[in-house]
Amino acid sequence: MNVKGFKFSAVEAAIKKPGRLDLALIFSEVPAVTAAVYTTNRVKAAPVLLSMERTRDGRGQALVVNSGNANACTGGQGMSDAVETAALVAEGLGIHEDLVLVASTGVIGKTLPMERLRAAVPGLVEGMSHAGLDGVARAIMTTDTFPKTESVTGEAGGKTYRIAGMAKGAGMIMPNMATMLSFLVSDAAIEPDLLRRLFREAVDSSFNVITIDGDTSTNDTALLMANGMAGNPLIREGTPEAELFGRLLQETLLSLARQIVRDGEGATKFVEIRVRRAVSHSDAKRAAMAVANSLLVKTAFFGQDANWGRILAAVGYSGSEIDQDLVSLYFDDVRMVSDGVFAGGDAEARGTEALRKKEFTVTVDLGLGEGAATVYTSDLSHDYVSINADYRT
Amino acid sequence: MNVKGFKFSAVEAAIKKPGRLDLALIFSEVPAVTAAVYTTNRVKAAPVLLSMERTRDGRGQALVVNSGNANACTGGQGMSDAVETAALVAEGLGIHEDLVLVASTGVIGKTLPMERLRAAVPGLVEGMSHAGLDGVARAIMTTDTFPKTESVTGEAGGKTYRIAGMAKGAGMIMPNMATMLSFLVSDAAIEPDLLRRLFREAVDSSFNVITIDGDTSTNDTALLMANGMAGNPLIREGTPEAELFGRLLQETLLSLARQIVRDGEGATKFVEIRVRRAVSHSDAKRAAMAVANSLLVKTAFFGQDANWGRILAAVGYSGSEIDQDLVSLYFDDVRMVSDGVFAGGDAEARGTEALRKKEFTVTVDLGLGEGAATVYTSDLSHDYVSINADYRT
Repeated sequence: MNVKGFKFSAVEAAIKKPGRLDLALIFSEVPAVTAAVYTTNRVKAAPVLLSMERTRDGRGQALVVNSGNANACTGGQGMSDAVETAALVAEGLGIHEDLVLVASTGVIGKTLPMERLRAAVPGLVEGMSHAGLDGVARAIMTTDTFPKTESVTGEAGGKTYRIAGMAKGAGMIMPNMATMLSFLVSDAAIEPDLLRRLFREAVDSSFNVITIDGDTSTNDTALLMANGMAGNPLIREGTPEAELFGRLLQETLLSLARQIVRDGEGATKFVEIRVRRAVSHSDAKRAAMAVANSLLVKTAFFGQDANWGRILAAVGYSGSEIDQDLVSLYFDDVRMVSDGVFAGGDAEARGTEALRKKEFTVTVDLGLGEGAATVYTSDLSHDYVSINADYRT
Repeated sequence: MNVKGFKFSAVEAAIKKPGRLDLALIFSEVPAVTAAVYTTNRVKAAPVLLSMERTRDGRGQALVVNSGNANACTGGQGMSDAVETAALVAEGLGIHEDLVLVASTGVIGKTLPMERLRAAVPGLVEGMSHAGLDGVARAIMTTDTFPKTESVTGEAGGKTYRIAGMAKGAGMIMPNMATMLSFLVSDAAIEPDLLRRLFREAVDSSFNVITIDGDTSTNDTALLMANGMAGNPLIREGTPEAELFGRLLQETLLSLARQIVRDGEGATKFVEIRVRRAVSHSDAKRAAMAVANSLLVKTAFFGQDANWGRILAAVGYSGSEIDQDLVSLYFDDVRMVSDGVFAGGDAEARGTEALRKKEFTVTVDLGLGEGAATVYTSDLSHDYVSINADYRT
């Protein structure tokens, strides 16, 4: 599905191993209203610092992104390399360099191979096409095993618009913030402040409720450009059209977020952790995150072991209010724990059955209040260890 | 080395697999001044709740401990089982049941096999000996691969006293608090309030600065009984003797804590993480803990990969103040990072060499202030995953 006025390109610049796309471009034929959310890590990669600066005015027209090298912890050289990369792309596209945003993902601490980048940019600009989104989704992959894309269609004032996007994840995945790369494009016409609010909210209930390993990267960037070329009347705050756009955006981001969890490094399980009847939403999220990040819980999921005690232990140290005598716990619809103790009967066998599935839900009912939260996570397998023990070799 | 007036015993009660000690007893011939620190987990096992109550007055005479079953998340039945276990031991020893403390470690959520415990207690009491400390250290093991003991000798007023102790750890190891089981005995005569303060401080700088997997258990207990039978003049607050006792206690606990890290589930590396020149001690500790708990850092240690970028990323999301342009990082004495960027030269080769050793130090110098902290951790290996995926099977 094409999004009006957007072109895409991806090439091999030999930053990664030969035969793999590693440099990509997203270009809007006209400057686009741009919303972005960046890593909360205090150590920020050069491309993040540069793009933060350039998206402050809510405008952008192109994004150049490389994989294989994060351009993080690279000091002044890293910043000048990021600036130069954007300048090369701006020159090739014939636009102002302030409208070119940059992103990088890969190994931390190595400077970019600028000779190769310089050599690759002309072909990158040359190769742009309206249908190239999938190529960009592939080019941003690192340990991802499949490209992640999603698109939806909406309507405003009788005009159809589109939202399309891609993401990469796999490791170093944890809120807060995008905690990965995700780029969205839309041809909708929409107010800048409204776009920013809707994007922030959609990120909060998608990328910020997934966790794979609890690590927050130095390079996380989620970015949305909307260029208005669908020709719809401007979508304004407080209208049904704004509601619809927000819902579609949320849907798109949640789909990408779920794809990231499914493709978590070494993941064999997709697990939805629901905490309900907590004292507050923040308590519920704290508890759900502690469960989702517990190594003991995640290894038990991998082992298909209905070890609910580890889940209660994680809730117990999460900082959430808990009265252990009031807790219920379910694997899918199998009640494992009632009033804080094992439910008995055939719960063990049926709970184990639930955990044998590739996707299942864990529900912790704290029995205290109205707070609820859901997070998505994966298990922790041998492959996670292998992938990350050998990442740079 | 015997500690005057203390007797020990350990038997097989068939709580664990056949052929393994799983029930143990520590007994002081006279009531002892007792200090204890318990898990901060909001979900607390029955034996923890009972012992917390019973050590409130700072007195104890016996401790009965089982492994193989945590008696956690077992509701009212769990509490009555803990009370009964203590009562059986009190009867066998001929002392008041309020002086009998209990501890458990093992699987969460199963009630204790009380028939077997009832059958085993007479033999447990019968088998006590002054030399039995090592047997207790073995009986409290779960996935531990070796028993952990330490002892020291001190002097007060011309009299020699001893401190001896044991610990078990292996998984679910993380501050705050003991985060494992550790039992200490001493024949020193010492003021109760002083003992409590010194024990709390020694725990804070030993068991509370180790982390293996970031999980805090429901059963953690560290407990010290001092019975005064060495005959020394009472050790009082504000004296050189108090200083010495504190230092010896600290030494003993740190030795046990380091043994726990060395025996971390699946651990192949022992790593000392030092953060210095942070804005404050708490910032330094926060940063060191984030590094020590990062899965990406721990898997890189396992892979012997000098991936310092992951360490900086962990400091970056720790919440500690950091200026990435001021950071230096060392593997042992090899400077990997200078002013936030790769130090260059032969640092990669020499850093990798350091990581090939079984024990090494990571030093992060934030260049900001006077805060410093050290934590001890292990790597994350395939065996950790195997052990915890299959723990109950």
